[in-house]
Amino acid sequence: MPNPSVPSVPSQKSVGTLRDALRLIVITDRELARPHPVEEVVAAVLRMGVRAIQLRDKAAGARALLEQARRLRALTSPYGALLFVNDRFDVALAAGADGVHLGPEDLPVLDVRRAAPAGFLIGYSTDDPEVARRAAADGADYIGCGTVYATASKGDAGEAIGLARLDEVAQSVGVPVVGIGGIDAARAREVARTRATGVAVIRGIMAAPDPGAVAAKILAAFTGSRTS
Amino acid sequence: MPNPSVPSVPSQKSVGTLRDALRLIVITDRELARPHPVEEVVAAVLRMGVRAIQLRDKAAGARALLEQARRLRALTSPYGALLFVNDRFDVALAAGADGVHLGPEDLPVLDVRRAAPAGFLIGYSTDDPEVARRAAADGADYIGCGTVYATASKGDAGEAIGLARLDEVAQSVGVPVVGIGGIDAARAREVARTRATGVAVIRGIMAAPDPGAVAAKILAAFTGSRTS
Repeated sequence: MPNPSVPSVPSQKSVGTLRDALRLIVITDRELARPHPVEEVVAAVLRMGVRAIQLRDKAAGARALLEQARRLRALTSPYGALLFVNDRFDVALAAGADGVHLGPEDLPVLDVRRAAPAGFLIGYSTDDPEVARRAAADGADYIGCGTVYATASKGDAGEAIGLARLDEVAQSVGVPVVGIGGIDAARAREVARTRATGVAVIRGIMAAPDPGAVAAKILAAFTGSRTS
Repeated sequence: MPNPSVPSVPSQKSVGTLRDALRLIVITDRELARPHPVEEVVAAVLRMGVRAIQLRDKAAGARALLEQARRLRALTSPYGALLFVNDRFDVALAAGADGVHLGPEDLPVLDVRRAAPAGFLIGYSTDDPEVARRAAADGADYIGCGTVYATASKGDAGEAIGLARLDEVAQSVGVPVVGIGGIDAARAREVARTRATGVAVIRGIMAAPDPGAVAAKILAAFTGSRTS
């Protein structure tokens, strides 16, 4: 699905800064992507300028997750795009991913930081400013913060925290904060008015008829207007 | 539950050879150990000479598994006993365990070997001589081979392979092979007549009224009679 009418696809091999890449993290979901393979959606958003992909598949065993991670690594590398693996530090290491995204039930940030090679990136999920500060002190490179908006998904992500809380968390830490939860292109423009660096999106891109177009709109919401 | 009538508890801090330690791997199971905590069973078998413990808890999240691993590390270290973590290479690393035990759905042996620090031990489960040879070539330090005997547990471990097949696998590889599945003290004496180095036991020890006594009997089955 390349779209030749969009001229501004970033050149290959320029990863830019971490903050640039974190304007939009596209998180994979095999179920939501159906009937398209996740790889097709990822390829489409990479072509439109996305520079951060998170592989998330809680149903997959380690070996199956590794195979997926290697496919995504092959897709992201030519763009210099970052690849994160959700939850599994060991799979991230084995796949040569750039980092891992951790939550409260995963390995502690500090332990992963101690075991990780230099330059390995760690994301951590929290909507609590104090927890975010501690995670950053322990070695987290960015914070995923949400659920920002109530989502149509089943309510296992907790209550919506809203933009004010997202802004508060972003103000509390020196590392980039990425809003997650129910975000589409219009809401990305709202998030861009907070101190958040960017957004992470699952359903809004995985289930979109034209994932590349949605990704381009979300990236545009965070482009040029701010420095953080 | 120390048993002062048994005089031959090995001295602390002597880990001995890997083959010595692999005469008996005690694998944890929180459910089978009830009402006793796993740590109590592990402490009892360590006192009776067991020098290899595998933490296995497929229901636990990574953080809970890490906490368990740290408790077992604290118990095993004074004895110079080996601690393996089942499945999770990352948890094993974070806990300072000696190794990880992998199966066909876990990360491949070769990938873990490449990412692991020097001296880190890798076990791999298979009942196939060719697969065992490949695992050893990829860097596995020992093979867990079974199910040797049909067990009372629900049949998710596959059909029993019997002693002849265990012997065949043990003959096929240069690394130690440990029989697993339905093994008690009497059967350990049968296994000791094969080329297997030792046995791994879950239920026979976790659910035993006197785990230390069972462990001592199993260790005795493998002591002195053979060199492999």
